[in-house]
Amino acid sequence: MLPVPINLAEKLALFSEHWSPKIVARMNNYDFKLVKMQGDFVWHRHTDTDETFLVLDGTLQIEFRDGVVTLNKGEMLVIPKGVEHKPSAPNVCNLLLVERTGTINTGDATESALTAGEGEWL
Amino acid sequence: MLPVPINLAEKLALFSEHWSPKIVARMNNYDFKLVKMQGDFVWHRHTDTDETFLVLDGTLQIEFRDGVVTLNKGEMLVIPKGVEHKPSAPNVCNLLLVERTGTINTGDATESALTAGEGEWL
Repeated sequence: MLPVPINLAEKLALFSEHWSPKIVARMNNYDFKLVKMQGDFVWHRHTDTDETFLVLDGTLQIEFRDGVVTLNKGEMLVIPKGVEHKPSAPNVCNLLLVERTGTINTGDATESALTAGEGEWL
Repeated sequence: MLPVPINLAEKLALFSEHWSPKIVARMNNYDFKLVKMQGDFVWHRHTDTDETFLVLDGTLQIEFRDGVVTLNKGEMLVIPKGVEHKPSAPNVCNLLLVERTGTINTGDATESALTAGEGEWL
């Protein structure tokens, strides 16, 4: 059976909710997730794994304890494990996340209202 | 120290050779690599790991033993481990690869003239 290409724009058109990761592909034990962000997320960290953000559309700001990094379309960033961060997006921002399977979106902030778990398959 | 955003277009402008993967980021033991493809690659497989292709510009064709998959800009595909494949691109195609650190570009076809190892950091 031939593997099926994943069209990211078509997948993004299938949902509208924010902060709710959608798994679109799995490579070994890593997941590719689409997420739409708008507004402020919560401070959190992933104690045992790095995670990767790639901006597909819009602008993402990631606050760290020692400063802010801005990511525009076509830019990516690896957040090292254990590092506290707080994403925010003034306008809707579409992201591709790459995370180890089972990574929870709010990391150690498990009591947050924005906790959506590891995401669901789209 | 703040993590540094990686601008994929700026990184792509730094090299021109084909079939020579350039590592731009590492997440745990996985690498993000940029590669420019044109022409035909060699049949190969990665016996112990999946790999992921994301097309940034252009069109990529991936031949499998039972058919061909075409990937356009904004489309991605996970090649399952052990599956023989042969990428080709009639025109220059810019790709983001995600592979476990140490993955050799020609997989089990280690004697190919196109073998470039796991790539070098850009």
